[in-house]
Amino acid sequence: MAGVSIATVSRVLNGDPVVKPETKLAVEKAIKTSGYHPNRVAQRLRSSYKSGRLIGLVIPDIRNPYYIDVIRGIEESAYANGSAVLIGNFSQDPEKEKMYINILKSESVDGFIIAPHHGHDKYVEDLIEQTHAVVCIDRGLANCSTDVVKSDNERGAFNAVEHLIKLGHKRIAHITGNLSIPTTHERIAGYVAALRKYDLPVDDTLIRGRASDFQSGIDITAELLDLPEPPEAIFTANNLLTLGSLEKIHERGVRIPDEIAIVGFDDMYWAASLNPALTAVRQHGFEIGKRAIELLYQRIEDPARPAANIIINTDLMVRRSCGFKPGTL
Amino acid sequence: MAGVSIATVSRVLNGDPVVKPETKLAVEKAIKTSGYHPNRVAQRLRSSYKSGRLIGLVIPDIRNPYYIDVIRGIEESAYANGSAVLIGNFSQDPEKEKMYINILKSESVDGFIIAPHHGHDKYVEDLIEQTHAVVCIDRGLANCSTDVVKSDNERGAFNAVEHLIKLGHKRIAHITGNLSIPTTHERIAGYVAALRKYDLPVDDTLIRGRASDFQSGIDITAELLDLPEPPEAIFTANNLLTLGSLEKIHERGVRIPDEIAIVGFDDMYWAASLNPALTAVRQHGFEIGKRAIELLYQRIEDPARPAANIIINTDLMVRRSCGFKPGTL
Repeated sequence: MAGVSIATVSRVLNGDPVVKPETKLAVEKAIKTSGYHPNRVAQRLRSSYKSGRLIGLVIPDIRNPYYIDVIRGIEESAYANGSAVLIGNFSQDPEKEKMYINILKSESVDGFIIAPHHGHDKYVEDLIEQTHAVVCIDRGLANCSTDVVKSDNERGAFNAVEHLIKLGHKRIAHITGNLSIPTTHERIAGYVAALRKYDLPVDDTLIRGRASDFQSGIDITAELLDLPEPPEAIFTANNLLTLGSLEKIHERGVRIPDEIAIVGFDDMYWAASLNPALTAVRQHGFEIGKRAIELLYQRIEDPARPAANIIINTDLMVRRSCGFKPGTL
Repeated sequence: MAGVSIATVSRVLNGDPVVKPETKLAVEKAIKTSGYHPNRVAQRLRSSYKSGRLIGLVIPDIRNPYYIDVIRGIEESAYANGSAVLIGNFSQDPEKEKMYINILKSESVDGFIIAPHHGHDKYVEDLIEQTHAVVCIDRGLANCSTDVVKSDNERGAFNAVEHLIKLGHKRIAHITGNLSIPTTHERIAGYVAALRKYDLPVDDTLIRGRASDFQSGIDITAELLDLPEPPEAIFTANNLLTLGSLEKIHERGVRIPDEIAIVGFDDMYWAASLNPALTAVRQHGFEIGKRAIELLYQRIEDPARPAANIIINTDLMVRRSCGFKPGTL
């Protein structure tokens, strides 16, 4: 339409100053008139980062510091391979998750790393059926064989609660995450298993969950502290819940660990600077991110290879928020 | 919906044999009924994505909690308008910044929100010259008229240091951010202005900066504590530096605020749970994000309108980490 070569169109689209202004105008006009959308893949191949890949990362909650570690792990490997990572944050909202999957699909990313909203996530299943390269983090899919990298959530939760029990705590509450997330149930299972192992009752009034966010941590901690018989200890299911819980405990002037103990799932790099230094289950987010992109590259290279399920151990970082074994201080 | 406890739902999802078959059925039915409705959701999404925009967000460091607030502000307005936000995190690396600008350009986003690496950022200038819709956050561009939303950094820093001085601190160190970032210099200017106002000497050995990250906070705090005459107080230029500084201070067993005071630029929503509760300059990240996308929509609608420069005030959140005025306790 503009009477110029594809290379010239490309130069205009890439803002190359070599192009004469009148040519640029003609091309831009033609593009506007024709409603032409550049073939994004082709354009990408021609641009400076041609050696690498474009990775779409769809994460549930950018406010959770755990995902920041995962992103770092993914980006570090991506950059070492000349790849770039576009991030869509769906804030635990399945509609937004679908939106980002659709957008990244239409932008022709070379592969996806996704923490599916739940184990029956149809959007992610469809993506895999359409032979896109996909690696799941944190959660697998029930109806679909796919690569997964996640923490050993049940064991991690078990260790945290066992730690509380061994310190003499009996009435232990659990603030759970969003109940539509499989991870939440794995952590509940670990909590219940620890109580059972030590013949402690599982009290439904002490298992409470709403959303996996800061405000839920605040609100549920208030509910627990207001019980006729408040818990002696709280096990929180993620970082944001832990920080919300601490906020409420401090606001009420309840002393940790003397009056209440707390252990959180997810460590934070500043956990030692919290008041008191927080005992926490460390997920290796950086490692999870690194493994995920490794699997993704392998999937892109070999779409037919069998799916791998990588489960990373957690570590219990014992600091001061659960108290001390009688006699050890 | 199934009339059972969270623990029971969890047991069903985990395939616990303890659950009665009829309970299992009821729970499974409730999950099915309350689950997503793929077709309806897809329809709604398809229509909302078409009516909305695709926004490219290029941020310097996703590890800094301040940017998480900015992202929240941008996303909240974007979602209310049916738009989506693709995020590229360039980790303070100008080459990666360029990469993300190129990618998002080739993906034909409708507009950009960018925190430029520095005030002479050629990539961002080029983008604006190519008539892309761009709003800058945190920093403007020296050679280019563009929309900017930022905090009043100099005033915020001044207030923090004046607070320290009024509490009786005289030997006040400043851990600066990355010196290529304009924000860093605005905060240094506020620090110097406060010292001058109160006739305190500006001691170059007490102004130290490397990168704007956690590790720099750790390392520079160690240097400061190792001085023959260590500072009585530290003013840190961002969140990550503050958290790194706290880490080192705690590791050394130096007591805050008795032995050293600390005030940070950037508040964190969990700052009250730090040890001790942190006094900090609150930037209104959420508001900055909201204003930025508002300006971006207006820019997309009216490419010719004059550029706006929005400067948002900061608030000094006084908690416990700087000590107390003599006689007030």
